[in-house]
Amino acid sequence: MNFALAVHGGAGLSRAGSLSPERQASCRAALEEALRTGARTLASGGSAVDAVEAAVIILEDSPLFNAGHGAVLNADGDAELDAGIMDGRQRTAGGVAGLRRTRNPIQAARAAMEHSPHVLLSGAGADAFASERGLAQVDPAWFVIDERKAQLANLLAGTPDDGSDAYGTVGAVARDLEGHLAAATSTGGTAGKRYGRIGDSPIIGAGTWAWDSTCAVSCTGDGEAFIRSHLAGRVSDWIEMSGLSLREAAHRAIHHDLTGGKGGLIAVGKAGPAVMPYNTAGMFRGRIDMRGEPEVSIW
Amino acid sequence: MNFALAVHGGAGLSRAGSLSPERQASCRAALEEALRTGARTLASGGSAVDAVEAAVIILEDSPLFNAGHGAVLNADGDAELDAGIMDGRQRTAGGVAGLRRTRNPIQAARAAMEHSPHVLLSGAGADAFASERGLAQVDPAWFVIDERKAQLANLLAGTPDDGSDAYGTVGAVARDLEGHLAAATSTGGTAGKRYGRIGDSPIIGAGTWAWDSTCAVSCTGDGEAFIRSHLAGRVSDWIEMSGLSLREAAHRAIHHDLTGGKGGLIAVGKAGPAVMPYNTAGMFRGRIDMRGEPEVSIW
Repeated sequence: MNFALAVHGGAGLSRAGSLSPERQASCRAALEEALRTGARTLASGGSAVDAVEAAVIILEDSPLFNAGHGAVLNADGDAELDAGIMDGRQRTAGGVAGLRRTRNPIQAARAAMEHSPHVLLSGAGADAFASERGLAQVDPAWFVIDERKAQLANLLAGTPDDGSDAYGTVGAVARDLEGHLAAATSTGGTAGKRYGRIGDSPIIGAGTWAWDSTCAVSCTGDGEAFIRSHLAGRVSDWIEMSGLSLREAAHRAIHHDLTGGKGGLIAVGKAGPAVMPYNTAGMFRGRIDMRGEPEVSIW
Repeated sequence: MNFALAVHGGAGLSRAGSLSPERQASCRAALEEALRTGARTLASGGSAVDAVEAAVIILEDSPLFNAGHGAVLNADGDAELDAGIMDGRQRTAGGVAGLRRTRNPIQAARAAMEHSPHVLLSGAGADAFASERGLAQVDPAWFVIDERKAQLANLLAGTPDDGSDAYGTVGAVARDLEGHLAAATSTGGTAGKRYGRIGDSPIIGAGTWAWDSTCAVSCTGDGEAFIRSHLAGRVSDWIEMSGLSLREAAHRAIHHDLTGGKGGLIAVGKAGPAVMPYNTAGMFRGRIDMRGEPEVSIW
Protein backbone atom coordinates (compact mmCIF):
# COMPACT_ATOMS: atom_id res chain seq x y z
CA MET A 1 0.00 0.00 0.00
CA ASN A 2 1.30 3.42 -1.03
CA PHE A 3 0.28 6.40 1.06
CA ALA A 4 -0.94 9.56 -0.62
CA LEU A 5 -1.41 13.12 0.59
CA ALA A 6 -2.61 16.31 -1.05
CA VAL A 7 -3.08 19.84 0.27
CA HIS A 8 -4.66 23.01 -1.06
CA GLY A 9 -4.33 26.64 -0.11
CA GLY A 10 -7.44 27.83 -1.88
CA ALA A 11 -8.75 28.51 -5.33
CA GLY A 12 -10.30 31.76 -6.48
CA LEU A 13 -7.17 33.22 -8.07
CA SER A 14 -8.38 35.65 -10.65
CA ARG A 15 -5.33 35.97 -12.91
CA ALA A 16 -1.76 34.84 -13.29
CA GLY A 17 -0.30 38.33 -12.82
CA SER A 18 -1.85 38.94 -9.41
CA LEU A 19 0.89 37.31 -7.35
CA SER A 20 4.45 38.59 -7.04
CA PRO A 21 7.25 36.05 -7.59
CA GLU A 22 8.20 36.43 -3.93
CA ARG A 23 4.65 35.72 -2.80
CA GLN A 24 4.41 32.70 -5.06
CA ALA A 25 7.67 31.36 -3.63
CA SER A 26 6.45 31.85 -0.05
CA CYS A 27 3.17 30.08 -0.78
CA ARG A 28 4.96 27.20 -2.48
CA ALA A 29 7.29 26.83 0.49
CA ALA A 30 4.37 26.71 2.94
CA LEU A 31 2.52 24.11 0.88
CA GLU A 32 5.72 22.01 0.66
CA GLU A 33 6.17 22.22 4.41
CA ALA A 34 2.59 21.07 4.93
CA LEU A 35 3.15 18.16 2.54
CA ARG A 36 6.43 17.11 4.16
CA THR A 37 4.87 17.33 7.63
CA GLY A 38 1.89 15.18 6.71
CA ALA A 39 4.08 12.75 4.75
CA ARG A 40 6.35 12.20 7.76
CA THR A 41 3.27 11.18 9.75
CA LEU A 42 2.14 8.78 7.03
CA ALA A 43 5.59 7.31 6.36
CA SER A 44 5.98 6.40 10.01
CA GLY A 45 2.66 4.56 10.04
CA GLY A 46 0.54 7.42 11.39
CA SER A 47 -3.15 7.65 10.56
CA ALA A 48 -4.68 9.63 7.73
CA VAL A 49 -6.52 11.73 10.32
CA ASP A 50 -3.26 12.63 12.06
CA ALA A 51 -1.68 13.51 8.71
CA VAL A 52 -4.42 15.85 7.47
CA GLU A 53 -4.62 17.57 10.84
CA ALA A 54 -0.85 18.12 10.95
CA ALA A 55 -0.77 19.46 7.39
CA VAL A 56 -3.66 21.85 7.99
CA ILE A 57 -2.11 23.21 11.19
CA ILE A 58 0.95 24.30 9.17
CA LEU A 59 -1.30 26.21 6.77
CA GLU A 60 -3.47 27.70 9.55
CA ASP A 61 -0.37 29.08 11.25
CA SER A 62 0.94 30.59 8.01
CA PRO A 63 -0.26 34.18 7.40
CA LEU A 64 -0.33 33.47 3.66
CA PHE A 65 -3.63 31.62 3.59
CA ASN A 66 -7.22 32.33 4.60
CA ALA A 67 -7.32 30.13 7.70
CA GLY A 68 -6.28 30.63 11.31
CA HIS A 69 -3.65 33.41 11.60
CA GLY A 70 -4.12 35.65 8.57
CA ALA A 71 -7.73 34.71 7.87
CA VAL A 72 -10.01 37.14 6.07
CA LEU A 73 -12.15 39.45 8.22
CA ASN A 74 -15.90 39.68 8.51
CA ALA A 75 -17.81 42.94 8.01
CA ASP A 76 -17.05 43.94 11.61
CA GLY A 77 -13.29 43.45 11.16
CA ASP A 78 -13.11 40.20 13.13
CA ALA A 79 -11.88 36.75 12.15
CA GLU A 80 -14.60 34.07 12.38
CA LEU A 81 -13.12 30.66 11.66
CA ASP A 82 -14.72 27.48 10.30
CA ALA A 83 -13.18 24.01 10.03
CA GLY A 84 -14.27 20.44 9.34
CA ILE A 85 -12.63 17.01 9.54
CA MET A 86 -13.80 13.48 8.67
CA ASP A 87 -12.35 10.04 9.34
CA GLY A 88 -13.16 7.61 6.52
CA ARG A 89 -13.01 4.50 8.69
CA GLN A 90 -16.38 4.88 10.41
CA ARG A 91 -17.43 8.13 8.75
CA THR A 92 -17.06 9.98 12.03
CA ALA A 93 -16.82 13.74 11.59
CA GLY A 94 -16.56 17.07 13.36
CA GLY A 95 -17.12 20.67 12.37
CA VAL A 96 -16.78 24.05 14.07
CA ALA A 97 -18.14 27.37 12.82
CA GLY A 98 -17.55 30.95 13.89
CA LEU A 99 -14.59 30.35 16.22
CA ARG A 100 -13.00 33.59 17.48
CA ARG A 101 -10.53 32.40 20.11
CA THR A 102 -9.31 28.90 19.32
CA ARG A 103 -5.85 29.13 17.79
CA ASN A 104 -6.11 26.10 15.48
CA PRO A 105 -9.68 25.53 14.32
CA ILE A 106 -8.88 22.13 12.81
CA GLN A 107 -7.96 20.89 16.28
CA ALA A 108 -11.38 22.00 17.53
CA ALA A 109 -13.05 20.15 14.66
CA ARG A 110 -11.13 17.01 15.56
CA ALA A 111 -12.07 17.38 19.22
CA ALA A 112 -15.73 17.71 18.19
CA MET A 113 -15.37 14.50 16.16
CA GLU A 114 -13.77 12.54 18.97
CA HIS A 115 -15.15 14.03 22.18
CA SER A 116 -18.56 15.59 21.52
CA PRO A 117 -21.93 13.90 21.01
CA HIS A 118 -22.56 16.60 18.39
CA VAL A 119 -20.98 16.81 14.92
CA LEU A 120 -21.27 20.55 14.29
CA LEU A 121 -20.61 23.23 16.95
CA SER A 122 -20.89 26.99 16.49
CA GLY A 123 -20.05 30.39 17.89
CA ALA A 124 -19.03 31.02 21.48
CA GLY A 125 -20.14 27.51 22.37
CA ALA A 126 -17.61 26.02 19.96
CA ASP A 127 -14.80 28.09 21.49
CA ALA A 128 -15.95 27.05 24.97
CA PHE A 129 -15.86 23.40 23.95
CA ALA A 130 -12.36 23.77 22.50
CA SER A 131 -11.19 25.54 25.64
CA GLU A 132 -12.63 22.79 27.85
CA ARG A 133 -10.73 20.28 25.75
CA GLY A 134 -7.52 22.15 26.55
CA LEU A 135 -6.92 23.62 23.09
CA ALA A 136 -4.89 26.83 22.94
CA GLN A 137 -6.99 30.00 23.11
CA VAL A 138 -5.71 33.35 21.81
CA ASP A 139 -6.80 36.95 21.80
CA PRO A 140 -8.99 37.50 18.72
CA ALA A 141 -6.46 40.08 17.52
CA TRP A 142 -3.94 37.27 17.05
CA PHE A 143 -5.70 36.19 13.86
CA VAL A 144 -5.75 39.67 12.30
CA ILE A 145 -2.97 40.83 9.96
CA ASP A 146 -2.61 44.24 8.27
CA GLU A 147 -3.09 42.83 4.79
CA ARG A 148 -6.56 41.59 5.75
CA LYS A 149 -7.48 44.93 7.32
CA ALA A 150 -6.57 46.63 4.04
CA GLN A 151 -8.52 44.03 2.07
CA LEU A 152 -11.64 44.64 4.16
CA ALA A 153 -11.27 48.44 3.95
CA ASN A 154 -11.05 48.19 0.16
CA LEU A 155 -14.02 45.84 0.06
CA LEU A 156 -16.19 48.08 2.22
CA ALA A 157 -15.11 51.12 0.16
CA GLY A 158 -16.05 49.34 -3.04
CA THR A 159 -12.48 49.50 -4.39
CA PRO A 160 -11.89 47.04 -7.24
CA ASP A 161 -10.30 43.73 -6.32
CA ASP A 162 -6.53 44.02 -5.95
CA GLY A 163 -5.84 40.31 -6.22
CA SER A 164 -5.55 39.72 -2.50
CA ASP A 165 -8.60 37.48 -2.70
CA ALA A 166 -6.18 35.02 -4.20
CA TYR A 167 -5.33 33.40 -0.88
CA GLY A 168 -7.94 31.00 0.26
CA THR A 169 -9.24 28.19 2.35
CA VAL A 170 -6.80 25.40 3.21
CA GLY A 171 -7.33 21.67 3.26
CA ALA A 172 -5.75 18.24 3.13
CA VAL A 173 -6.74 14.70 2.12
CA ALA A 174 -4.78 11.55 2.87
CA ARG A 175 -4.64 7.78 2.46
CA ASP A 176 -2.49 6.08 5.08
CA LEU A 177 -0.46 2.87 4.90
CA GLU A 178 -3.47 0.87 6.10
CA GLY A 179 -5.62 2.29 3.30
CA HIS A 180 -7.76 4.52 5.53
CA LEU A 181 -8.85 7.92 4.23
CA ALA A 182 -9.36 11.30 5.91
CA ALA A 183 -10.10 14.90 4.92
CA ALA A 184 -9.71 18.26 6.69
CA THR A 185 -10.62 21.81 5.68
CA SER A 186 -10.10 25.15 7.49
CA THR A 187 -11.06 28.69 6.50
CA GLY A 188 -11.87 32.22 7.49
CA GLY A 189 -14.71 32.15 4.98
CA THR A 190 -15.46 35.11 2.73
CA ALA A 191 -14.10 38.61 3.36
CA GLY A 192 -16.79 40.97 4.62
CA LYS A 193 -19.17 38.16 5.55
CA ARG A 194 -22.12 39.04 7.78
CA TYR A 195 -24.78 37.57 10.03
CA GLY A 196 -22.77 34.64 11.34
CA ARG A 197 -22.32 33.23 7.84
CA ILE A 198 -21.12 29.61 7.77
CA GLY A 199 -19.44 28.28 4.63
CA ASP A 200 -19.00 24.81 3.22
CA SER A 201 -15.75 23.86 5.00
CA PRO A 202 -17.32 22.59 8.28
CA ILE A 203 -20.32 21.06 6.48
CA ILE A 204 -19.81 17.32 6.05
CA GLY A 205 -20.76 16.42 2.49
CA ALA A 206 -20.39 20.00 1.23
CA GLY A 207 -16.75 21.11 1.72
CA THR A 208 -15.35 18.06 3.52
CA TRP A 209 -15.95 14.32 3.14
CA ALA A 210 -14.13 11.02 3.72
CA TRP A 211 -15.20 7.40 3.43
CA ASP A 212 -12.80 4.48 3.04
CA SER A 213 -15.12 2.88 0.47
CA THR A 214 -14.90 5.79 -1.96
CA CYS A 215 -12.67 8.83 -1.38
CA ALA A 216 -11.62 11.75 0.80
CA VAL A 217 -12.42 15.27 -0.47
CA SER A 218 -11.59 18.85 0.61
CA CYS A 219 -13.12 21.76 -1.32
CA THR A 220 -12.36 25.45 -1.78
CA GLY A 221 -14.12 28.25 -3.60
CA ASP A 222 -17.56 29.87 -3.44
CA GLY A 223 -18.84 28.11 -0.34
CA GLU A 224 -22.51 28.80 -1.04
CA ALA A 225 -22.29 26.97 -4.38
CA PHE A 226 -20.58 24.00 -2.75
CA ILE A 227 -23.32 23.81 -0.07
CA ARG A 228 -26.13 24.02 -2.63
CA SER A 229 -24.49 21.20 -4.63
CA HIS A 230 -23.47 19.11 -1.55
CA LEU A 231 -20.39 18.80 -3.68
CA ALA A 232 -17.91 16.74 -1.65
CA GLY A 233 -20.61 14.13 -1.07
CA ARG A 234 -21.37 14.02 -4.77
CA VAL A 235 -17.80 13.03 -5.64
CA SER A 236 -18.22 10.07 -3.29
CA ASP A 237 -21.70 9.25 -4.57
CA TRP A 238 -20.56 9.23 -8.22
CA ILE A 239 -17.97 6.60 -7.32
CA GLU A 240 -20.36 4.52 -5.20
CA MET A 241 -23.55 4.83 -7.21
CA SER A 242 -22.35 5.16 -10.80
CA GLY A 243 -19.00 3.40 -10.71
CA LEU A 244 -17.02 6.43 -11.87
CA SER A 245 -13.29 6.55 -11.22
CA LEU A 246 -11.98 9.07 -8.70
CA ARG A 247 -10.73 11.25 -11.55
CA GLU A 248 -14.02 11.09 -13.44
CA ALA A 249 -16.06 11.79 -10.31
CA ALA A 250 -13.92 14.74 -9.19
CA HIS A 251 -13.84 16.32 -12.65
CA ARG A 252 -17.58 15.86 -13.12
CA ALA A 253 -18.27 17.47 -9.74
CA ILE A 254 -16.15 20.56 -10.44
CA HIS A 255 -16.79 21.01 -14.15
CA HIS A 256 -20.44 19.95 -14.35
CA ASP A 257 -22.18 19.70 -10.97
CA LEU A 258 -20.90 22.92 -9.37
CA THR A 259 -23.32 25.64 -10.48
CA GLY A 260 -23.54 29.26 -9.41
CA GLY A 261 -19.94 29.53 -8.29
CA LYS A 262 -16.34 28.57 -8.87
CA GLY A 263 -13.70 26.63 -7.02
CA GLY A 264 -11.75 23.42 -6.83
CA LEU A 265 -11.11 20.35 -4.74
CA ILE A 266 -8.46 17.83 -3.83
CA ALA A 267 -9.42 14.17 -3.53
CA VAL A 268 -7.73 10.84 -2.88
CA GLY A 269 -9.19 7.37 -3.36
CA LYS A 270 -8.49 3.78 -2.39
CA ALA A 271 -5.46 3.63 -4.70
CA GLY A 272 -3.39 5.90 -6.89
CA PRO A 273 -2.40 9.54 -6.63
CA ALA A 274 -4.56 12.46 -5.55
CA VAL A 275 -6.56 14.46 -8.12
CA MET A 276 -6.88 18.25 -7.92
CA PRO A 277 -9.40 19.72 -10.39
CA TYR A 278 -10.50 23.38 -10.35
CA ASN A 279 -12.41 25.74 -12.62
CA THR A 280 -10.71 28.96 -11.51
CA ALA A 281 -7.58 30.50 -13.06
CA GLY A 282 -5.45 28.79 -10.42
CA MET A 283 -5.46 26.86 -7.17
CA PHE A 284 -2.67 26.53 -4.61
CA ARG A 285 -2.20 22.81 -4.47
CA GLY A 286 0.30 20.05 -3.95
CA ARG A 287 0.65 16.31 -3.49
CA ILE A 288 3.16 13.79 -2.29
CA ASP A 289 3.43 10.01 -2.01
CA MET A 290 5.97 7.41 -0.87
CA ARG A 291 8.42 8.48 -3.57
CA GLY A 292 8.80 11.52 -1.35
CA GLU A 293 9.14 14.63 -3.53
CA PRO A 294 6.42 17.28 -3.02
CA GLU A 295 4.79 18.42 -6.24
CA VAL A 296 3.37 21.94 -5.81
CA SER A 297 1.46 23.99 -8.41
CA ILE A 298 -0.46 27.25 -8.55
CA TRP A 299 -1.60 27.77 -12.15
CA MET B 1 -50.06 17.67 -13.22
CA ASN B 2 -51.18 16.60 -9.76
CA PHE B 3 -49.78 18.50 -6.80
CA ALA B 4 -48.45 16.60 -3.81
CA LEU B 5 -47.63 17.65 -0.26
CA ALA B 6 -46.32 15.78 2.78
CA VAL B 7 -45.50 16.92 6.30
CA HIS B 8 -43.78 15.37 9.29
CA GLY B 9 -43.75 16.20 12.97
CA GLY B 10 -40.72 14.14 13.87
CA ALA B 11 -39.63 10.57 14.30
CA GLY B 12 -37.95 9.13 17.37
CA LEU B 13 -41.06 7.73 19.01
CA SER B 14 -39.88 4.97 21.24
CA ARG B 15 -43.04 2.92 21.70
CA ALA B 16 -46.73 2.86 20.85
CA GLY B 17 -47.89 3.32 24.44
CA SER B 18 -46.01 6.56 25.06
CA LEU B 19 -48.70 8.90 23.73
CA SER B 20 -52.12 9.45 25.31
CA PRO B 21 -55.15 9.22 22.98
CA GLU B 22 -55.77 12.94 23.58
CA ARG B 23 -52.20 13.81 22.63
CA GLN B 24 -52.37 11.68 19.52
CA ALA B 25 -55.61 13.41 18.49
CA SER B 26 -54.07 16.85 19.00
CA CYS B 27 -51.00 15.95 16.95
CA ARG B 28 -53.15 14.51 14.15
CA ALA B 29 -55.25 17.66 14.08
CA ALA B 30 -52.17 19.88 13.82
CA LEU B 31 -50.70 17.80 10.99
CA GLU B 32 -54.04 17.91 9.16
CA GLU B 33 -54.18 21.67 9.53
CA ALA B 34 -50.66 21.96 8.11
CA LEU B 35 -51.63 19.73 5.18
CA ARG B 36 -54.84 21.64 4.44
CA THR B 37 -53.01 24.97 4.66
CA GLY B 38 -50.28 23.90 2.25
CA ALA B 39 -52.80 22.23 -0.07
CA ARG B 40 -54.84 25.42 -0.34
CA THR B 41 -51.71 27.21 -1.53
CA LEU B 42 -50.97 24.52 -4.10
CA ALA B 43 -54.57 24.15 -5.31
CA SER B 44 -54.74 27.86 -6.07
CA GLY B 45 -51.58 27.70 -8.17
CA GLY B 46 -49.15 28.78 -5.44
CA SER B 47 -45.53 27.65 -5.52
CA ALA B 48 -44.09 24.63 -3.77
CA VAL B 49 -41.90 27.00 -1.73
CA ASP B 50 -44.93 28.94 -0.53
CA ALA B 51 -46.69 25.70 0.37
CA VAL B 52 -43.90 24.16 2.44
CA GLU B 53 -43.30 27.44 4.26
CA ALA B 54 -47.00 27.80 5.10
CA ALA B 55 -47.25 24.20 6.33
CA VAL B 56 -44.15 24.49 8.51
CA ILE B 57 -45.33 27.75 10.09
CA ILE B 58 -48.46 25.92 11.35
CA LEU B 59 -46.26 23.29 13.01
CA GLU B 60 -43.77 25.84 14.39
CA ASP B 61 -46.62 27.72 16.08
CA SER B 62 -48.06 24.52 17.59
CA PRO B 63 -46.65 23.69 21.06
CA LEU B 64 -46.94 19.97 20.21
CA PHE B 65 -43.79 19.74 18.11
CA ASN B 66 -40.08 20.44 18.56
CA ALA B 67 -39.90 23.61 16.47
CA GLY B 68 -40.65 27.27 17.17
CA HIS B 69 -43.01 27.65 20.16
CA GLY B 70 -42.61 24.51 22.27
CA ALA B 71 -39.14 23.58 21.00
CA VAL B 72 -36.83 21.51 23.19
CA LEU B 73 -34.37 23.40 25.40
CA ASN B 74 -30.59 23.40 25.33
CA ALA B 75 -28.49 22.62 28.41
CA ASP B 76 -28.88 26.24 29.58
CA GLY B 77 -32.68 26.07 29.38
CA ASP B 78 -32.97 28.19 26.23
CA ALA B 79 -34.52 27.43 22.85
CA GLU B 80 -32.00 27.57 19.97
CA LEU B 81 -33.79 27.09 16.67
CA ASP B 82 -32.56 25.74 13.33
CA ALA B 83 -34.37 25.73 9.97
CA GLY B 84 -33.62 25.09 6.31
CA ILE B 85 -35.48 25.55 3.03
CA MET B 86 -34.66 24.74 -0.61
CA ASP B 87 -36.31 25.64 -3.90
CA GLY B 88 -35.91 22.87 -6.47
CA ARG B 89 -36.12 25.17 -9.49
CA GLN B 90 -32.61 26.60 -9.32
CA ARG B 91 -31.42 24.75 -6.22
CA THR B 92 -31.42 27.98 -4.23
CA ALA B 93 -31.40 27.41 -0.49
CA GLY B 94 -31.28 29.06 2.90
CA GLY B 95 -30.52 27.90 6.42
CA VAL B 96 -30.47 29.48 9.88
CA ALA B 97 -28.96 28.00 13.03
CA GLY B 98 -29.19 28.97 16.68
CA LEU B 99 -32.00 31.54 16.41
CA ARG B 100 -33.23 32.80 19.80
CA ARG B 101 -35.58 35.64 18.89
CA THR B 102 -37.12 35.08 15.46
CA ARG B 103 -40.66 33.81 15.92
CA ASN B 104 -40.81 31.61 12.80
CA PRO B 105 -37.39 30.20 11.91
CA ILE B 106 -38.57 28.90 8.53
CA GLN B 107 -39.31 32.48 7.49
CA ALA B 108 -35.73 33.41 8.38
CA ALA B 109 -34.43 30.50 6.30
CA ARG B 110 -36.51 31.67 3.34
CA ALA B 111 -35.26 35.23 3.76
CA ALA B 112 -31.68 33.91 3.79
CA MET B 113 -32.44 32.04 0.54
CA GLU B 114 -33.94 35.05 -1.20
CA HIS B 115 -32.22 38.08 0.29
CA SER B 116 -28.77 37.10 1.55
CA PRO B 117 -25.57 36.40 -0.40
CA HIS B 118 -24.95 33.65 2.16
CA VAL B 119 -26.78 30.30 2.35
CA LEU B 120 -26.25 29.51 6.05
CA LEU B 121 -26.49 32.09 8.86
CA SER B 122 -25.96 31.45 12.57
CA GLY B 123 -26.44 32.78 16.07
CA ALA B 124 -27.12 36.42 16.89
CA GLY B 125 -26.22 37.34 13.32
CA ALA B 126 -29.03 35.20 11.96
CA ASP B 127 -31.55 36.85 14.30
CA ALA B 128 -30.22 40.28 13.30
CA PHE B 129 -30.65 39.41 9.63
CA ALA B 130 -34.22 38.22 10.22
CA SER B 131 -35.01 41.37 12.19
CA GLU B 132 -33.62 43.58 9.41
CA ARG B 133 -35.87 41.72 6.97
CA GLY B 134 -38.86 42.68 9.11
CA LEU B 135 -39.60 39.22 10.51
CA ALA B 136 -41.38 39.11 13.87
CA GLN B 137 -39.05 39.00 16.88
CA VAL B 138 -40.16 37.67 20.27
CA ASP B 139 -38.81 37.43 23.78
CA PRO B 140 -36.83 34.17 24.06
CA ALA B 141 -39.25 33.06 26.79
CA TRP B 142 -42.00 32.91 24.15
CA PHE B 143 -40.58 29.63 22.83
CA VAL B 144 -40.39 27.93 26.24
CA ILE B 145 -43.25 25.78 27.55
CA ASP B 146 -43.49 23.99 30.91
CA GLU B 147 -43.39 20.53 29.36
CA ARG B 148 -39.96 21.26 27.89
CA LYS B 149 -38.66 22.64 31.18
CA ALA B 150 -39.69 19.38 32.86
CA GLN B 151 -38.11 17.36 30.04
CA LEU B 152 -34.80 19.18 30.47
CA ALA B 153 -34.87 18.84 34.25
CA ASN B 154 -35.43 15.10 33.91
CA LEU B 155 -32.67 14.86 31.35
CA LEU B 156 -30.16 16.76 33.48
CA ALA B 157 -31.17 14.66 36.50
CA GLY B 158 -30.63 11.46 34.55
CA THR B 159 -34.28 10.37 34.94
CA PRO B 160 -35.26 7.68 32.45
CA ASP B 161 -37.03 8.83 29.29
CA ASP B 162 -40.74 9.46 29.87
CA GLY B 163 -41.73 9.39 26.22
CA SER B 164 -41.75 13.14 25.79
CA ASP B 165 -38.89 12.80 23.33
CA ALA B 166 -41.61 11.60 20.98
CA TYR B 167 -42.32 15.04 19.57
CA GLY B 168 -39.80 16.10 17.03
CA THR B 169 -38.58 18.20 14.21
CA VAL B 170 -41.14 19.36 11.65
CA GLY B 171 -40.90 19.51 7.88
CA ALA B 172 -42.74 19.63 4.58
CA VAL B 173 -42.09 18.69 0.95
CA ALA B 174 -44.22 19.72 -2.02
CA ARG B 175 -44.67 19.46 -5.77
CA ASP B 176 -46.72 22.31 -7.21
CA LEU B 177 -49.01 22.42 -10.25
CA GLU B 178 -46.07 23.46 -12.44
CA GLY B 179 -44.05 20.45 -11.29
CA HIS B 180 -41.57 22.40 -9.18
CA LEU B 181 -40.34 20.90 -5.91
CA ALA B 182 -39.45 22.39 -2.52
CA ALA B 183 -38.53 21.22 0.99
CA ALA B 184 -38.53 22.89 4.42
CA THR B 185 -37.42 21.67 7.86
CA SER B 186 -37.53 23.38 11.28
CA THR B 187 -36.39 22.18 14.70
CA GLY B 188 -35.24 22.98 18.18
CA GLY B 189 -32.62 20.26 17.80
CA THR B 190 -31.85 17.85 20.62
CA ALA B 191 -32.88 18.44 24.23
CA GLY B 192 -29.92 19.40 26.42
CA LYS B 193 -27.69 20.25 23.46
CA ARG B 194 -24.52 22.21 24.19
CA TYR B 195 -21.80 24.31 22.58
CA GLY B 196 -23.94 25.89 19.86
CA ARG B 197 -24.76 22.48 18.38
CA ILE B 198 -26.23 22.65 14.87
CA GLY B 199 -28.26 19.70 13.58
CA ASP B 200 -29.06 18.46 10.10
CA SER B 201 -32.21 20.53 9.47
CA PRO B 202 -30.48 23.72 8.20
CA ILE B 203 -27.77 21.77 6.37
CA ILE B 204 -28.59 21.54 2.68
CA GLY B 205 -28.00 17.94 1.58
CA ALA B 206 -28.20 16.58 5.14
CA GLY B 207 -31.68 17.29 6.54
CA THR B 208 -33.17 19.31 3.67
CA TRP B 209 -32.89 19.03 -0.12
CA ALA B 210 -34.90 19.89 -3.24
CA TRP B 211 -34.12 19.65 -6.95
CA ASP B 212 -36.75 19.56 -9.68
CA SER B 213 -34.76 16.89 -11.56
CA THR B 214 -34.96 14.37 -8.71
CA CYS B 215 -36.90 14.98 -5.48
CA ALA B 216 -37.56 17.11 -2.41
CA VAL B 217 -36.61 15.66 0.98
CA SER B 218 -37.07 16.66 4.65
CA CYS B 219 -35.49 14.50 7.37
CA THR B 220 -36.00 13.96 11.10
CA GLY B 221 -34.16 11.90 13.67
CA ASP B 222 -30.63 11.73 15.03
CA GLY B 223 -29.25 14.81 13.29
CA GLU B 224 -25.60 13.80 13.66
CA ALA B 225 -26.21 10.56 11.75
CA PHE B 226 -28.01 12.43 8.97
CA ILE B 227 -25.10 14.91 8.65
CA ARG B 228 -22.49 12.13 8.57
CA SER B 229 -24.48 10.37 5.81
CA HIS B 230 -25.41 13.61 3.91
CA LEU B 231 -28.67 11.72 3.77
CA ALA B 232 -31.12 14.01 1.99
CA GLY B 233 -28.60 14.49 -0.80
CA ARG B 234 -28.13 10.74 -1.10
CA VAL B 235 -31.83 10.19 -1.83
CA SER B 236 -31.45 12.61 -4.74
CA ASP B 237 -28.15 11.10 -5.88
CA TRP B 238 -29.56 7.55 -5.95
CA ILE B 239 -32.28 8.76 -8.32
CA GLU B 240 -29.88 10.78 -10.50
CA MET B 241 -26.84 8.51 -10.50
CA SER B 242 -28.31 5.02 -10.20
CA GLY B 243 -31.76 5.41 -11.71
CA LEU B 244 -33.58 4.29 -8.56
CA SER B 245 -37.24 5.22 -8.14
CA LEU B 246 -38.14 7.73 -5.43
CA ARG B 247 -39.47 4.92 -3.26
CA GLU B 248 -36.35 2.77 -3.74
CA ALA B 249 -34.03 5.71 -3.09
CA ALA B 250 -35.84 6.88 0.05
CA HIS B 251 -36.06 3.38 1.52
CA ARG B 252 -32.43 2.64 0.75
CA ALA B 253 -31.36 5.89 2.41
CA ILE B 254 -33.28 5.23 5.63
CA HIS B 255 -32.91 1.46 5.91
CA HIS B 256 -29.36 1.04 4.57
CA ASP B 257 -27.39 4.28 4.29
CA LEU B 258 -28.29 5.84 7.64
CA THR B 259 -25.77 4.46 10.13
CA GLY B 260 -25.18 5.38 13.75
CA GLY B 261 -28.65 6.75 14.33
CA LYS B 262 -32.36 6.49 13.66
CA GLY B 263 -35.01 8.59 11.99
CA GLY B 264 -37.15 9.06 8.95
CA LEU B 265 -37.84 11.30 6.01
CA ILE B 266 -40.60 12.52 3.73
CA ALA B 267 -39.92 12.88 0.01
CA VAL B 268 -41.78 13.78 -3.15
CA GLY B 269 -40.63 13.33 -6.73
CA LYS B 270 -41.52 14.51 -10.22
CA ALA B 271 -44.73 12.44 -10.22
CA GLY B 272 -46.80 10.32 -7.86
CA PRO B 273 -47.48 10.51 -4.15
CA ALA B 274 -45.02 11.31 -1.37
CA VAL B 275 -43.07 8.51 0.37
CA MET B 276 -42.47 8.55 4.14
CA PRO B 277 -40.03 5.82 5.32
CA TYR B 278 -38.66 5.65 8.89
CA ASN B 279 -36.77 3.16 11.02
CA THR B 280 -38.13 4.24 14.40
CA ALA B 281 -41.24 2.87 16.10
CA GLY B 282 -43.29 5.73 14.69
CA MET B 283 -43.18 9.05 12.85
CA PHE B 284 -45.76 11.83 12.84
CA ARG B 285 -46.51 12.15 9.15
CA GLY B 286 -49.17 12.96 6.63
CA ARG B 287 -49.75 13.59 2.95
CA ILE B 288 -52.34 15.09 0.67
CA ASP B 289 -52.87 15.53 -3.07
CA MET B 290 -55.50 16.96 -5.41
CA ARG B 291 -58.06 14.42 -4.24
CA GLY B 292 -58.08 16.54 -1.12
CA GLU B 293 -58.32 14.28 1.94
CA PRO B 294 -55.38 14.46 4.38
CA GLU B 295 -53.91 11.09 5.28
CA VAL B 296 -52.22 11.27 8.70
CA SER B 297 -50.37 8.44 10.49
CA ILE B 298 -48.23 8.04 13.59
CA TRP B 299 -47.34 4.33 13.90
